[in-house]
Amino acid sequence: MNEPLDVLAVMAHPDDTELLCGGALIKSADRGRRTGAVDLSGGERGTRGSAEVRHREAERAAEVLGLSVRRGAGLPDAGIENDDESRTVVAGIIRELRPRVVVTHWPRGRHPDHRRAARLVYDACFLAGLTNFPAPGEAHRPSKVVHAAAYREDAGNPTFVVDVTDQMERKLEALGCYESQFEGKSQAGEVFPGGDRTLFDQIRAWCAACGSRIRAAYGEPFWTRETVEIEDLAELEVSTF
Amino acid sequence: MNEPLDVLAVMAHPDDTELLCGGALIKSADRGRRTGAVDLSGGERGTRGSAEVRHREAERAAEVLGLSVRRGAGLPDAGIENDDESRTVVAGIIRELRPRVVVTHWPRGRHPDHRRAARLVYDACFLAGLTNFPAPGEAHRPSKVVHAAAYREDAGNPTFVVDVTDQMERKLEALGCYESQFEGKSQAGEVFPGGDRTLFDQIRAWCAACGSRIRAAYGEPFWTRETVEIEDLAELEVSTF
Amino acid sequence: MNEPLDVLAVMAHPDDTELLCGGALIKSADRGRRTGAVDLSGGERGTRGSAEVRHREAERAAEVLGLSVRRGAGLPDAGIENDDESRTVVAGIIRELRPRVVVTHWPRGRHPDHRRAARLVYDACFLAGLTNFPAPGEAHRPSKVVHAAAYREDAGNPTFVVDVTDQMERKLEALGCYESQFEGKSQAGEVFPGGDRTLFDQIRAWCAACGSRIRAAYGEPFWTRETVEIEDLAELEVSTF
Amino acid sequence: MNEPLDVLAVMAHPDDTELLCGGALIKSADRGRRTGAVDLSGGERGTRGSAEVRHREAERAAEVLGLSVRRGAGLPDAGIENDDESRTVVAGIIRELRPRVVVTHWPRGRHPDHRRAARLVYDACFLAGLTNFPAPGEAHRPSKVVHAAAYREDAGNPTFVVDVTDQMERKLEALGCYESQFEGKSQAGEVFPGGDRTLFDQIRAWCAACGSRIRAAYGEPFWTRETVEIEDLAELEVSTF
Amino acid sequence: MNEPLDVLAVMAHPDDTELLCGGALIKSADRGRRTGAVDLSGGERGTRGSAEVRHREAERAAEVLGLSVRRGAGLPDAGIENDDESRTVVAGIIRELRPRVVVTHWPRGRHPDHRRAARLVYDACFLAGLTNFPAPGEAHRPSKVVHAAAYREDAGNPTFVVDVTDQMERKLEALGCYESQFEGKSQAGEVFPGGDRTLFDQIRAWCAACGSRIRAAYGEPFWTRETVEIEDLAELEVSTF
Amino acid sequence: MNEPLDVLAVMAHPDDTELLCGGALIKSADRGRRTGAVDLSGGERGTRGSAEVRHREAERAAEVLGLSVRRGAGLPDAGIENDDESRTVVAGIIRELRPRVVVTHWPRGRHPDHRRAARLVYDACFLAGLTNFPAPGEAHRPSKVVHAAAYREDAGNPTFVVDVTDQMERKLEALGCYESQFEGKSQAGEVFPGGDRTLFDQIRAWCAACGSRIRAAYGEPFWTRETVEIEDLAELEVSTF
Repeated sequence: MNEPLDVLAVMAHPDDTELLCGGALIKSADRGRRTGAVDLSGGERGTRGSAEVRHREAERAAEVLGLSVRRGAGLPDAGIENDDESRTVVAGIIRELRPRVVVTHWPRGRHPDHRRAARLVYDACFLAGLTNFPAPGEAHRPSKVVHAAAYREDAGNPTFVVDVTDQMERKLEALGCYESQFEGKSQAGEVFPGGDRTLFDQIRAWCAACGSRIRAAYGEPFWTRETVEIEDLAELEVSTF
Repeated sequence: MNEPLDVLAVMAHPDDTELLCGGALIKSADRGRRTGAVDLSGGERGTRGSAEVRHREAERAAEVLGLSVRRGAGLPDAGIENDDESRTVVAGIIRELRPRVVVTHWPRGRHPDHRRAARLVYDACFLAGLTNFPAPGEAHRPSKVVHAAAYREDAGNPTFVVDVTDQMERKLEALGCYESQFEGKSQAGEVFPGGDRTLFDQIRAWCAACGSRIRAAYGEPFWTRETVEIEDLAELEVSTF
Repeated sequence: MNEPLDVLAVMAHPDDTELLCGGALIKSADRGRRTGAVDLSGGERGTRGSAEVRHREAERAAEVLGLSVRRGAGLPDAGIENDDESRTVVAGIIRELRPRVVVTHWPRGRHPDHRRAARLVYDACFLAGLTNFPAPGEAHRPSKVVHAAAYREDAGNPTFVVDVTDQMERKLEALGCYESQFEGKSQAGEVFPGGDRTLFDQIRAWCAACGSRIRAAYGEPFWTRETVEIEDLAELEVSTF
Repeated sequence: MNEPLDVLAVMAHPDDTELLCGGALIKSADRGRRTGAVDLSGGERGTRGSAEVRHREAERAAEVLGLSVRRGAGLPDAGIENDDESRTVVAGIIRELRPRVVVTHWPRGRHPDHRRAARLVYDACFLAGLTNFPAPGEAHRPSKVVHAAAYREDAGNPTFVVDVTDQMERKLEALGCYESQFEGKSQAGEVFPGGDRTLFDQIRAWCAACGSRIRAAYGEPFWTRETVEIEDLAELEVSTF
Repeated sequence: MNEPLDVLAVMAHPDDTELLCGGALIKSADRGRRTGAVDLSGGERGTRGSAEVRHREAERAAEVLGLSVRRGAGLPDAGIENDDESRTVVAGIIRELRPRVVVTHWPRGRHPDHRRAARLVYDACFLAGLTNFPAPGEAHRPSKVVHAAAYREDAGNPTFVVDVTDQMERKLEALGCYESQFEGKSQAGEVFPGGDRTLFDQIRAWCAACGSRIRAAYGEPFWTRETVEIEDLAELEVSTF
Repeated sequence: MNEPLDVLAVMAHPDDTELLCGGALIKSADRGRRTGAVDLSGGERGTRGSAEVRHREAERAAEVLGLSVRRGAGLPDAGIENDDESRTVVAGIIRELRPRVVVTHWPRGRHPDHRRAARLVYDACFLAGLTNFPAPGEAHRPSKVVHAAAYREDAGNPTFVVDVTDQMERKLEALGCYESQFEGKSQAGEVFPGGDRTLFDQIRAWCAACGSRIRAAYGEPFWTRETVEIEDLAELEVSTF
């Protein structure tokens, strides 16, 4: 049986992981965690870059992120559905990789695939833990499903932010591996344009605004259904004033 | 100059501290933190128990809580105002006790004193940090103002919960010191009645429901304006399912 | 034609009815109403207990609840879908049982079946009332669809609470019929654990916290899209202070 | 000692009661309840009509509303404060009139007096129940404080609506007593204009839109902090579809 | 290639367009814009009026609205799904008609078709812009998707309101074309009844209440995910007081 | 009598205007509007810079902003109250300057003065329009009160954003006039720090993130109680995707 993963991102398209939680994944890896990524589709319907090109790019990016494993799930780009078949596929991968924390999309999204992926992943994580659910492998249920809220205009206040100041350059380096997608663009995935600002400058601006929530240079925001536990009031860090 | 405090509760009446954040204060003390409490008024307009009686009760409760300091601010019971004079009094105490984290009421409240105390304490914490603010002592601004959301029907989801399972009996023991107030009652402070259930059983039920948010036996909920920082996705504890 | 039902619970799995609205159903029956329950699936994919065992348990529980009718809908456990076929099945049952008020799950849920059931039931109630909708039976549309919000951490304030103080023991007795499911457990359905507390103690704690919203010992919370009508301001019961 | 009141409106200016909850007060009176109104100020700073004129108008309106008592509190128009002195005045009136349910403004408002009145009345109701609070009379605490949400654009969904279809004409008749205020106007109090529509047509439109929430011709909306209790699911009236 | 449309309504059933955004469409046409409507289904499962009758009615209404084009999409009434096939159909129509602004239902709705249509239309607008998405025609993505919030009790504050005072009579005239549907009714589509008030009076009351938000006689409310841009603070129209 | 102002900012301290709405004021001036600013206090309790220094800085900044008038109101720094005296002062200024649109703080704020200023200004705008309100000058009521939501972590989605891309450099130039305040700082007013980033870079990051909401390089966000009116659906600019 595989060594379990500490954190696994399951996103709709190659590059979504880097855009939405690349910094937090690098940070976990920096701290010795086993991390991974699953790209639900190969991005084969995108206007730029073939699926093969995107695949090679994803592999290079995986190295920058320090992932222990990166996997495609083979679901159709621009056609992800939260149906029984897809849930079985994803539950099988969850059972194989055995992550403790799963990160996926925010439940709403610009791209229909993002919205569906958010629910598909949540459902598959639950179902993977049912002994009698007919997916391959042995029952495993991740302890947590976390939703990446980066760039979402409608996400309200995040449940928490991860300081990615020391990971910011590598996050952008990982994104830079997707030359076929981002060359000369000012928007991608959930990143809306900010006038003519380049995509990378736009990402910097958003992560900066988000980092400010925890009084740090750069941050990535996340949302969870469940409440945060704090061990001790005296350990709280982010200043009120 | 005094040794600074790690956590200071500033509440409207004696016993509010115990009701709202007694468990979290005991927990901080258990971990070696210096904790304190300020009772803004002496509770002299309450129907039961003179101010002296409540004062003695508060001192006994302070021992159970393990407080390093407990102080009255001398503001009028059932007449707390967020005015310049009161802000100067509270800012002076803040400057003297030099807390890093201040806990106070939720910004709304059943008792008008609670609502006003929440704002008075927030404002005084800010103003205490202005060098030119004319309160006694040297400028000091707490790093955080935290609001205790326990028992509030309108508080929505808390920002975080502190597990007080191991502190629950001592929390109730501290409340038991206020015999004059609670003898035979089914409600107090923000605690609404649950039929004829005794006050202590009612508190147990609420802390149990709240603890369940972090999958623990008993919890106390808190709210902050500012976002929570989480160091590493892999360290998140509370289960989603 | 069947005598119409006053209240009908339509839930995903046997025992969901008892967990979520058992007290309110008993109360309606106590007042002479005709009540019923539909279990959309037989719970056959649960780790414990066969579908037959759960069926017998459901029948015993139905007696304790005082139901006039209990019915399975034969949808697949861990695979409930809100599709045309399922809507036709449920609409057919609605037309046959002719309920005035239907109770179902909260629109979000821990178990994917719960989320889907909430929408499936809402849709089927609407469609059952269209003369030309091709389900068996004569058009019937329930007057109300009510969602049970018990144990939901994300449900916000309920639209209303039903006092189930006098029904609490029977609610737990009905749950006790599901020995195969609950023996030695600390969580089930939407009930999250509260440390090691037993499932029944956990339910008591939640219903107690909820009852306190209407100043009663135990309560079950519900949510409706539509606004509540109150006949006369002078008849309002729950105290503000 | 006075016979207690079932419902008492406490509003900032003469005519606010009629505009905001006139229908519900008439309905309570129709059902044999004792109702009353307190006008916190005499409206002496309004552009039209002297305080005396408004006083006479208020008396005529009181008859139409069927009030058992109408009283002025003598606070300054356009200068209502929630201070100790005003709270003592209002608490004294509460103690004298002994209402069970108090209706006041929504906590936000177009007129600064409305916002302050909402908090002043809430606080005074609480304080009037403290034996040691130094207002005239014997301690009395209303069971409920209800806020009238009519015409508020920012009030969200009301907690409940009262059907005032059978009271609508008398509500308008009571408003018609304030000739000095409303003659030829298209707005007043919280009623924003709807183009050139007359004030009465505008009120009809709003009460019609609000009545539709309970599927009735005309309604008045209210908000309470505390949750509504419903006796029996089978008794719920407002249709979902 | 067709001349592009400025505004295109895509709604579930004939008459939804008139009910939800008829005034705004007339207003755009009055200002020289090219407008259109797509009826996703023919309303063939409605209790009254055959699909042919509704079709003829829709054509007459189109003339009153001043539409440049009206089209049916042939999806099944009471069975609209947001599936791959339907998205391909709608995306094909979007590519053919090339609208800049698309108006559809609010994301929740009384009729299941409304809820699904809202998401189907959003998704189809996105997908229509992907070069590689296999729908007929050349890639075209509308600049905006706007949701009509009229009559929705749960829609909260709209993002903006369009003043339809000068279009109100023609909106009702367009609705009057649907004799088969509305004759003698007091509700339709999202319009809930207001007692026995006729449908047209009910629509007037809602549009009046909504118009009052912008201080106009009649208005239609809309919601967008994205934020409104205002060119100049000095040009803001709606009064605060 | 003075020529009326199109837009008037009324803020607590010198430099708040520049931080919160400097870009929008420059833009209005660029379009030929008459703009102004009132600094409620002189900032005399700040740690840095005397009131005189700040006054001279404010004058230089006024030139950069292109203000027609800048005025101090003489209220005490770190002691702004929303009391009768202050309302009379501000209402008098409103009557003198006769603005059509007034911009002030968001109703919550880091600095207690900001929170109070937001309410004081709202109230004074209302009261200034009452003929009988005893402030100097003739009755004048601004048409709108707009709240600047920039940098507020808790402000949710703004009602609208103004594109200040072409004004950004001048906004920063105006801020640069306040050398005594900002030299070497990373935070000020509502601007929380983003690690060690300089204040100006931090402002750029926030205005960039905000501009992205309207797909522009830089934006300033605002909130109004009242709904936005849009003239024509076809004129909507900000893209959905």
